[in-house]
Amino acid sequence: MASEAEPGGQRSALTQPQTRTAVDVATIGGMIAAAGLIGMAIVLGGSPGAFIDAPAVMIVIGGTFGVTTACFSLTDMGIAFRTVLRTILRAQPNPSQAAIQLLQLAQIARHRGILSMQNYLTSVENSPLLYQGLQMVIDGTPGDEAERIMRREVQARAQRRSRSVSILRKAAEISPAMGLIGTLVGLIQMLGNLDDPSTIGPSMAVALLTTFYGALLANVVFTPLASKMERNTAEDMLINHMHVMATASIARQENPRRLEMLLNTVLPPSERVDYFG
Amino acid sequence: MASEAEPGGQRSALTQPQTRTAVDVATIGGMIAAAGLIGMAIVLGGSPGAFIDAPAVMIVIGGTFGVTTACFSLTDMGIAFRTVLRTILRAQPNPSQAAIQLLQLAQIARHRGILSMQNYLTSVENSPLLYQGLQMVIDGTPGDEAERIMRREVQARAQRRSRSVSILRKAAEISPAMGLIGTLVGLIQMLGNLDDPSTIGPSMAVALLTTFYGALLANVVFTPLASKMERNTAEDMLINHMHVMATASIARQENPRRLEMLLNTVLPPSERVDYFG
Amino acid sequence: MASEAEPGGQRSALTQPQTRTAVDVATIGGMIAAAGLIGMAIVLGGSPGAFIDAPAVMIVIGGTFGVTTACFSLTDMGIAFRTVLRTILRAQPNPSQAAIQLLQLAQIARHRGILSMQNYLTSVENSPLLYQGLQMVIDGTPGDEAERIMRREVQARAQRRSRSVSILRKAAEISPAMGLIGTLVGLIQMLGNLDDPSTIGPSMAVALLTTFYGALLANVVFTPLASKMERNTAEDMLINHMHVMATASIARQENPRRLEMLLNTVLPPSERVDYFG
Amino acid sequence: MASEAEPGGQRSALTQPQTRTAVDVATIGGMIAAAGLIGMAIVLGGSPGAFIDAPAVMIVIGGTFGVTTACFSLTDMGIAFRTVLRTILRAQPNPSQAAIQLLQLAQIARHRGILSMQNYLTSVENSPLLYQGLQMVIDGTPGDEAERIMRREVQARAQRRSRSVSILRKAAEISPAMGLIGTLVGLIQMLGNLDDPSTIGPSMAVALLTTFYGALLANVVFTPLASKMERNTAEDMLINHMHVMATASIARQENPRRLEMLLNTVLPPSERVDYFG
Amino acid sequence: MASEAEPGGQRSALTQPQTRTAVDVATIGGMIAAAGLIGMAIVLGGSPGAFIDAPAVMIVIGGTFGVTTACFSLTDMGIAFRTVLRTILRAQPNPSQAAIQLLQLAQIARHRGILSMQNYLTSVENSPLLYQGLQMVIDGTPGDEAERIMRREVQARAQRRSRSVSILRKAAEISPAMGLIGTLVGLIQMLGNLDDPSTIGPSMAVALLTTFYGALLANVVFTPLASKMERNTAEDMLINHMHVMATASIARQENPRRLEMLLNTVLPPSERVDYFG
Repeated sequence: MASEAEPGGQRSALTQPQTRTAVDVATIGGMIAAAGLIGMAIVLGGSPGAFIDAPAVMIVIGGTFGVTTACFSLTDMGIAFRTVLRTILRAQPNPSQAAIQLLQLAQIARHRGILSMQNYLTSVENSPLLYQGLQMVIDGTPGDEAERIMRREVQARAQRRSRSVSILRKAAEISPAMGLIGTLVGLIQMLGNLDDPSTIGPSMAVALLTTFYGALLANVVFTPLASKMERNTAEDMLINHMHVMATASIARQENPRRLEMLLNTVLPPSERVDYFG
Repeated sequence: MASEAEPGGQRSALTQPQTRTAVDVATIGGMIAAAGLIGMAIVLGGSPGAFIDAPAVMIVIGGTFGVTTACFSLTDMGIAFRTVLRTILRAQPNPSQAAIQLLQLAQIARHRGILSMQNYLTSVENSPLLYQGLQMVIDGTPGDEAERIMRREVQARAQRRSRSVSILRKAAEISPAMGLIGTLVGLIQMLGNLDDPSTIGPSMAVALLTTFYGALLANVVFTPLASKMERNTAEDMLINHMHVMATASIARQENPRRLEMLLNTVLPPSERVDYFG
Repeated sequence: MASEAEPGGQRSALTQPQTRTAVDVATIGGMIAAAGLIGMAIVLGGSPGAFIDAPAVMIVIGGTFGVTTACFSLTDMGIAFRTVLRTILRAQPNPSQAAIQLLQLAQIARHRGILSMQNYLTSVENSPLLYQGLQMVIDGTPGDEAERIMRREVQARAQRRSRSVSILRKAAEISPAMGLIGTLVGLIQMLGNLDDPSTIGPSMAVALLTTFYGALLANVVFTPLASKMERNTAEDMLINHMHVMATASIARQENPRRLEMLLNTVLPPSERVDYFG
Repeated sequence: MASEAEPGGQRSALTQPQTRTAVDVATIGGMIAAAGLIGMAIVLGGSPGAFIDAPAVMIVIGGTFGVTTACFSLTDMGIAFRTVLRTILRAQPNPSQAAIQLLQLAQIARHRGILSMQNYLTSVENSPLLYQGLQMVIDGTPGDEAERIMRREVQARAQRRSRSVSILRKAAEISPAMGLIGTLVGLIQMLGNLDDPSTIGPSMAVALLTTFYGALLANVVFTPLASKMERNTAEDMLINHMHVMATASIARQENPRRLEMLLNTVLPPSERVDYFG
Repeated sequence: MASEAEPGGQRSALTQPQTRTAVDVATIGGMIAAAGLIGMAIVLGGSPGAFIDAPAVMIVIGGTFGVTTACFSLTDMGIAFRTVLRTILRAQPNPSQAAIQLLQLAQIARHRGILSMQNYLTSVENSPLLYQGLQMVIDGTPGDEAERIMRREVQARAQRRSRSVSILRKAAEISPAMGLIGTLVGLIQMLGNLDDPSTIGPSMAVALLTTFYGALLANVVFTPLASKMERNTAEDMLINHMHVMATASIARQENPRRLEMLLNTVLPPSERVDYFG
């Protein structure tokens, strides 16, 4: 976890804590593996076409979407959708690299003055919170004020995230219910029309499809996404917390060694940094 | 979120934070979409008449209503019914416009004296809490006293709302149970009378109808309404909280800039206002 | 909510806050309505006799009673039984009338001295807590001491009530389980004896009866009673709380206007009183 | 609840608060009544032998025991077993008699000195905690120290009890699951071997037996025992708490009247004592 | 629980609190007993081969693994896997022997100086936390600092453990859902292809296999492992807590008698030590 950048190095040497966006292997891989195994069992069974039925898809997916929207609002649904995409295609944050970057910034600010931060704003463009913080520091906002504003922002983000998690949990609750409703519709239709016994089997098969879709959506899609989103939120909040600490420390022109000590109190043990030796 | 009204503007310029009442698109739309998809599957199945059965409707809807009433009281049921209507046909409150209106009032009260509020009472008629607050201010009730009385009122409203949410949650719990009870009645009747095999199918179809109704009521009606009501209550409480803050501030004749700062601490970041520049 | 009694009126003018005991319309009506709708569906089905089976009744009602007793004790069961009766046949307490009565007592005590309370003991006989409190006041127990003793009594009552609610909740949990056990007994008996196919239907019908009874008991009887008892406890605790406040105030010979203010802080807004104008 | 023993009476007059051990009528009676009603329904059905099946018993009872042991440890299981026995065959503690006994001891200690407690140790042999406390008092342990040691002991007992309750709750959760597993084994065996239709009924009957056993164990055995154990623990903790109070009071040579007041603050209202008049 | 080592004994006399690693008899034994009883019922039924089906195994085990991974991350899964192994093959910690060892170390440090701890480092190699602590003591880290660092380490371990427990609980939740999904796949395939009635039984048997696997995995594997891991964590945390206390005490060169008193406050009563008589 040692930094390759020399203490007090140039802008080009600023550690970039986040690599380019990539799919989350565990989440996408795990979901695809589970779906693939189920798909394989379907194909091995010989008639995969029997597992596709447009009205069943409509009832379960459309119904779950409709009821979940009714529980929240269109705005919330949009935010949840973007949050899901960001959960799947997320840059794995690296807390110790983030800490190194913050210590470098603090050291530069200490040596060359707070206004030098201007040159590093573009380096932190992909961390909107840190960008906003440094901007405030450059504008001369006092440390306490900047910290207060950023904490409010962090809290608002956490709330938005937790609402997205609620939406996914609600969808995981509604989709099996929609599956059951679809199956009841199919069963009632079949039972009211038992004249030709040869149609009973296929009709029941179609009726069960919605239960199958509902169970699949809840367990293979919504539940893992909700769990993963909760886990990622905890990680992101750690990084956000560090950005707040660093901004306040820079604004107060404190010794960067003190910032290192503070960052290490929130970093998990395996991620702690020892930048100043 | 900037105000079009000039600071210190006339009564006609007072920002009206709430537009006219309209249906909640997400809730009504989502519920109708889900019900529509299920209805379409029923119609496509060919015999929609098989899905309507008066005794089944009576057992599930009547039974759920009866048991839910037994859990609460007639008064509570009436309040819950009105709260449901207000959830469906609600004016979307706009916190930042509400804040602007309050700042305008505070500024007018500052410039022209507290008694000038008399002219603006009609403008806030659709916010009973604010109306009551301004009335107290005009009557010379001290700020602390007015704040205490209004807080008690806000708390009483929150309690009434939370009881209405409980009623909907209880109904969502009871309706599938009523569906099961109806299906058991139908099954027992059918099983005791198996002489004519051709009637088994239709009898079972009718027996399953109550389960279908129960699942539909719980998942497509009661659960989304309860969730939405809880969400709206949180929003309304924010507005109420702002009205209390503003009334107390006006009664104490504080600087409206201080009120702006206070309001911004409770407003979500995207709704914060910058009225005095 | 204005009092008809003149302030300082005679004993005969003392407001009686509780009218005579009457059945709780919402609870009894709701339960009867739900049961009636189910009964109607049974009668319409043509063979209501098929829904009565002595062993099924014994397993579900007797089993639920036995297991619930095993979870608690005979004393608890007796208390719960009496509490259920009092829930069904309860006097609707009227908090604002109770407040008026207390203010009248406080005013009389103020004008004619504490010993005059002796004449009003019979008027409060149906409020054992208030009776006990006034008795202590007459005996010269200091206000703090009386308040402490009464608070302990109120807490003990709340505990007894909450245990009765637990018993009903436990019974609502056990009765469907007993229904399932009875159905399993019936199914196992039927399956071990399939020689005559014509008996399969009626045997299964009888087997399902216990599930039906269990669902009915849990959802139409125990759950509403438990919910209602919890709700009533909250109301009764409010009245008890007011009695404690008033007794302490009388014992301390405080100004009745102060008692009015105190009572209004615990009364819900719609029940607040304005006795002294 | 008055004491027959004269204040200051001799050792022979010491009230013995606990009568001899006896079965808990409510628990044993309730469980036997529920099981008896189910048994009667089985016998009335004609073929009780069909309800006994060795492999089914092994899967459900053995499996539940095995999995529950795996969740805890052999030591825990032993403690839980002994606690269950003590729950069934327990002496009903009588808090007010226990209080009288403690007040007698306190009075004797006050009149004849702490060393006189030596003569009463055998009288309290069946209350190990009180025995240990008096032993410490005789040995001259200061009141605070004795209280601290006894409180730690009480806490350790409460923890052991709560672990036993957890074991019973876990068993109540595992036994229906074991019943389901057994039924699935039976169904799979039956379905793989449908050649002789006459065996289908009896095979399914046997398959359902494990579900029946699992439901019976969970609802008629484990759940009531767990509930009762929790309830008894609360009562025993009250007695333990009183023993700690009394020991500390004796060690500090306080006035027994003060102890009476202290004991009355923890006793439920109906059990309060008035020993010194 | 008395120590065989003489107070102040040589290094060779240092009590070794942990015997060699061995399987946890209760956990492994309980799980094997439960699985064995189920296996026996399968073998007695005559066709054990019918209970093995590769696609069913793949859907349930693979699917559960995939979805659980998607909920967490690959790193978490690795840690959970190692924690499970350590739960099964764990050394039963002996708190009182651990306490004796710590008191011996404290006494030696007191008599021969802190640097003498160097000779005992190898004796505590299998307690990494204690090893790290003594190392810090030898290096002259002050007591408060060492305590702070170790507490952070203990907290990080507790968090890692609790995440592993969550993974097992999630797997116990997902595996029955995967079993249901597999059964639905099998049922839909069977129902779509009812031409040859002789295949219905075996097809349904195969379809039920996934439900069977799911129930087995959840109840016989994941749930007991999760419960046991939680229980072990509590025990390990006790030992860790004692190591922190002892290290801080040695670093502060306190009297070992004080350490004994401190250790006894956290040890359960049956494990308390009396090393210094």
